[in-house]
Amino acid sequence: MDYDRYDRIRALQWQGTALRLLDQRRLPMEEVFIDCHSAAAVAAAIANLSVRGAPAIGIAAAYGVVLAARQRTSADGCIDRAGLAADLRELAASRPTAVNLCWALKRMQRLLDAGASVAALAAEAVAIEREDLAANRHMGSLGAALIAPGSGVLTHCNTGSLATAGFGTALGVIRAGVASGRIARVFNTETRPWLQGTRLTAWELLKDGIDAKLIVDSAAAHLMRTGAVQWVIVGADRIAANGDTANKIGTYQLAICARHHGVKFMVVAPASTVDRQT
Amino acid sequence: MDYDRYDRIRALQWQGTALRLLDQRRLPMEEVFIDCHSAAAVAAAIANLSVRGAPAIGIAAAYGVVLAARQRTSADGCIDRAGLAADLRELAASRPTAVNLCWALKRMQRLLDAGASVAALAAEAVAIEREDLAANRHMGSLGAALIAPGSGVLTHCNTGSLATAGFGTALGVIRAGVASGRIARVFNTETRPWLQGTRLTAWELLKDGIDAKLIVDSAAAHLMRTGAVQWVIVGADRIAANGDTANKIGTYQLAICARHHGVKFMVVAPASTVDRQT
Repeated sequence: MDYDRYDRIRALQWQGTALRLLDQRRLPMEEVFIDCHSAAAVAAAIANLSVRGAPAIGIAAAYGVVLAARQRTSADGCIDRAGLAADLRELAASRPTAVNLCWALKRMQRLLDAGASVAALAAEAVAIEREDLAANRHMGSLGAALIAPGSGVLTHCNTGSLATAGFGTALGVIRAGVASGRIARVFNTETRPWLQGTRLTAWELLKDGIDAKLIVDSAAAHLMRTGAVQWVIVGADRIAANGDTANKIGTYQLAICARHHGVKFMVVAPASTVDRQT
Repeated sequence: MDYDRYDRIRALQWQGTALRLLDQRRLPMEEVFIDCHSAAAVAAAIANLSVRGAPAIGIAAAYGVVLAARQRTSADGCIDRAGLAADLRELAASRPTAVNLCWALKRMQRLLDAGASVAALAAEAVAIEREDLAANRHMGSLGAALIAPGSGVLTHCNTGSLATAGFGTALGVIRAGVASGRIARVFNTETRPWLQGTRLTAWELLKDGIDAKLIVDSAAAHLMRTGAVQWVIVGADRIAANGDTANKIGTYQLAICARHHGVKFMVVAPASTVDRQT
């Protein structure tokens, strides 16, 4: 598939000595980037919602660890271990609900414990980012293959390039479904209370040339009733070990309405979103 | 019941030579009244949503007929029948979907056809308004009697004093239920896309000292799931002869969720909202 055609947005851009973040609070009116030169700056960006979306938060935190290691290593190669641990605690506390954040920090911690260099840490963060993009593209193909040609789909909140390394989870399936001609109609909710659907998903789809209709959250059941929608496709903030899924307010309501109308329901998330401790 | 304690708002105020309307477009930030001296001014107020709510529109239109008859009657008592008919057509066209509007105009037309005086027409409009208030209070008592003490209720859009002569339809049941101690918790949706719940219902409840919690439309099913809500109580724009109900977007979704959770559902509307032609 010509993935690039449907996926041009990169909200996280590693610069080598800084992490450049597209400030999602200012979309869609302004496209402004923030350069984070320290773990504290990354933690602040996560806490203040400049970067959001479970996978994107994990990737940002991994780069935050690289920035921390760089800052805490003196010219003679000595590492301030206490300072580094404090940076990691700050990153971990920046979004307590995001399981991907803990997952990424643990993965980076393993390298730190093994005495990895800053360069090795940076390579690991890049790997986390690349694996996410690859996983999204793979999930996109797998998910799209389940959808009958000519289907209408509805998605809730933002799970696209902005929320991930690129391509997206639920929106990745929609991108792949549109690209492969299986999806004929896309609807996205506005997503109250913060309008992620209106501000972010609508902006992304427009940016990547995918035709979609923005609806108020309350209108979803009407579309199911009239046959406009055959699938609801959403992401997940966290998936419990038994498969229970936590996601944006309104997801549960969509699931009930989908069941009532016999509309299919797909949750798209990488393995790092599964919380095996639950 | 001490109705007045829970019902102090009067959005329509007949002044004898003008109809004073609380401009609902500017609530909750400003409480501004508009004085309508002509049928055209009333029709404009209906069309531009200064006055809204099916029963309130009917009452406003009835007063619009009084203003039209006054204007179209010359000093010597001659009536410009063609001008009057044009005024009624303008009123009828101001909100094509409101069945109460047609109902009120037909009721006034009968008096016009019988050659009623302006004073008799005014008395009829006052009667329509008083009957609506009395009906709402009666519906309130009947509806509240169905609710088990200690219940939580959820309402959608605005069906209160602002939408009627006073007391309200669905919100009238809630007022009566709160007054009689049967309702322990009130939730009202924000009601997208125009926020009638946020701007109007929340303002009304606050004004009348009824404790309520404002929620996004998408959060309703969660409240049902957690047991916070035992009843959904809504009004109707129009009720077909078979009982099918047309109401604000989101009502259907609420009904599905209520059914899924075994939450009871009440539609509260006067007989004038039933369209017997359907």
